[in-house]
Amino acid sequence: MVCAKSWTLKKHFEGFPKQSDFELKEVELPPLKDGEVLLEAVFLSIDPYMRPYSAKVMKEGDVMIGEQVAKVVESKNPTYPVGAFVLCRSGWTTHSISTGKGLSLMFPNWPEKLSRSLALGPIGMPGLTAYFGLSEICRPKPGETVLVNAAAGAVGSIVGQIAKIKGCKVVGTAGSDEKVEFLKQLGFDEVFNYKTVKSLEEALKKASPTGYDCYFDNVGGEFSSVALEQMNTFGRIALCGAISLYNDKVPQTGPYIHKTMIFKELCMEGFLVTRWKNRNDEGLKALLKWVEEGKLKCYEHITEGFENMPKAFMGMLKGENVGKAIIKV
Amino acid sequence: MVCAKSWTLKKHFEGFPKQSDFELKEVELPPLKDGEVLLEAVFLSIDPYMRPYSAKVMKEGDVMIGEQVAKVVESKNPTYPVGAFVLCRSGWTTHSISTGKGLSLMFPNWPEKLSRSLALGPIGMPGLTAYFGLSEICRPKPGETVLVNAAAGAVGSIVGQIAKIKGCKVVGTAGSDEKVEFLKQLGFDEVFNYKTVKSLEEALKKASPTGYDCYFDNVGGEFSSVALEQMNTFGRIALCGAISLYNDKVPQTGPYIHKTMIFKELCMEGFLVTRWKNRNDEGLKALLKWVEEGKLKCYEHITEGFENMPKAFMGMLKGENVGKAIIKV
Repeated sequence: MVCAKSWTLKKHFEGFPKQSDFELKEVELPPLKDGEVLLEAVFLSIDPYMRPYSAKVMKEGDVMIGEQVAKVVESKNPTYPVGAFVLCRSGWTTHSISTGKGLSLMFPNWPEKLSRSLALGPIGMPGLTAYFGLSEICRPKPGETVLVNAAAGAVGSIVGQIAKIKGCKVVGTAGSDEKVEFLKQLGFDEVFNYKTVKSLEEALKKASPTGYDCYFDNVGGEFSSVALEQMNTFGRIALCGAISLYNDKVPQTGPYIHKTMIFKELCMEGFLVTRWKNRNDEGLKALLKWVEEGKLKCYEHITEGFENMPKAFMGMLKGENVGKAIIKV
Repeated sequence: MVCAKSWTLKKHFEGFPKQSDFELKEVELPPLKDGEVLLEAVFLSIDPYMRPYSAKVMKEGDVMIGEQVAKVVESKNPTYPVGAFVLCRSGWTTHSISTGKGLSLMFPNWPEKLSRSLALGPIGMPGLTAYFGLSEICRPKPGETVLVNAAAGAVGSIVGQIAKIKGCKVVGTAGSDEKVEFLKQLGFDEVFNYKTVKSLEEALKKASPTGYDCYFDNVGGEFSSVALEQMNTFGRIALCGAISLYNDKVPQTGPYIHKTMIFKELCMEGFLVTRWKNRNDEGLKALLKWVEEGKLKCYEHITEGFENMPKAFMGMLKGENVGKAIIKV
């Protein structure tokens, strides 16, 4: 008998999540049936989307949603032999049984020297989000200026590096001096701590006096209202995340954007990475190649211990992570 | 000697324009030089864009900007013989001298039965705005549902009719019962007076319980915040005008749209018709063909008398016009 530990949503979040909104549960898993496999989590992903999606797809008592890298520890399914590593969406749980549905084997040729946790970050969903969001929605041309916020996060740090690979000038913003240093090391052209500048407007102008052609937005809200005014005509804005708005108890408000959108002929598009799922292989191949060539640097913010998962999640929402937030069991 | 009467911007508008913001001036025009033509306005255009553009491109004392259909009454330029009709951007003036720059001869084969004023409306800039904005930004497919507001206006009334031609279900909103009747006659599927419904949200839901795939927005502001929530996944929003915001003294605010834009994967694009200027002929040809076939009905709101131009402009901003607002000299 295997005992699975799971973090469940005890109570729907109101405003910023609290430790008491989560509950750790233990369940004994039944023996495997034919076709099933038993998975043991190795790395679990912590992502911003979990906050808004908890309200959309979960009910109280459900196991928190999420992706993990797991190892097959018992198998009655020849596609997934014991010892194989898989990506699965079992949520915040140490052990789970799968029929193989929604399971995917990790690249059989996953490079030895790379941590498998990168399949939850730069060479996984956040990497694909950066890759497709930037190339398909921002459509940057060499020489253009790209703005990315939450730039030290799992997606932002990849966006900026890909934009550099594509020959753009990259301006990144983040919320701590440590992150600003990190972004400089990644090769961003201009970076600043948006929390400590006197005026975001002035700081953005100084970072790019000629304005911005592309804006990859992970933040939303007030930041975006200021950034919008500095877009160049025919600018493209990819709305990837809105972390500044996810914990609102009362929705925030800001100036209407219609006039600026019209007179500057801006295009703003929200997206979920799932829309390119039939092109995942293309994206993963490109990301892996860049990582292996040293063009794309990967940073992870690893928290050890499954029991620390809610804390790591809340920390990520506060912006404590540099790079991809990961739980190592 | 010819005396030109012109309406000038005496004072930049603060909030809603007032009669005292305008001044009528008379100027004696000099004799023509070689290459010049003397134009006499026949029809003048009244358009919403004049309100926001007055602040962008005009200084106090300038003649109000705008387009007109004029007749060549004296000519020292063989391209524009006496008696020819032209489209020009001489502004709110009865007579003007042109070197031919920015002048365009009206279709030589302009159909006898059509008023030349239509070249300022359905078969002119507003028609092209509807044609390209709908086809290139909303990209409606047959069977989809298209929402258009200010639907009885110069652009909106054409948008709705083209959407019908393209096989869509069309929902139009307007601000008076008279306009609602007019839209029914134009063949819109669902129409309502947004000023008298109890809840805009409920009225939009009732008009299309399955949501909206395309939204052609002439209004902006609060209307748009409500409409956005009823867009379907992958919906397209063309931002053409923001008449609800043009007269703000203090910018209005509303809820941030980022979360909805992301989770519904919406695309919102602001545009000016000038971006398609190299395709004007294509658009005008299509519009004229539909008008001649009776598929596109043209309505004009004609005010007689050049002296009434400010009043007609203010009336248009208040939504008093049904169809294209035109001044007949």
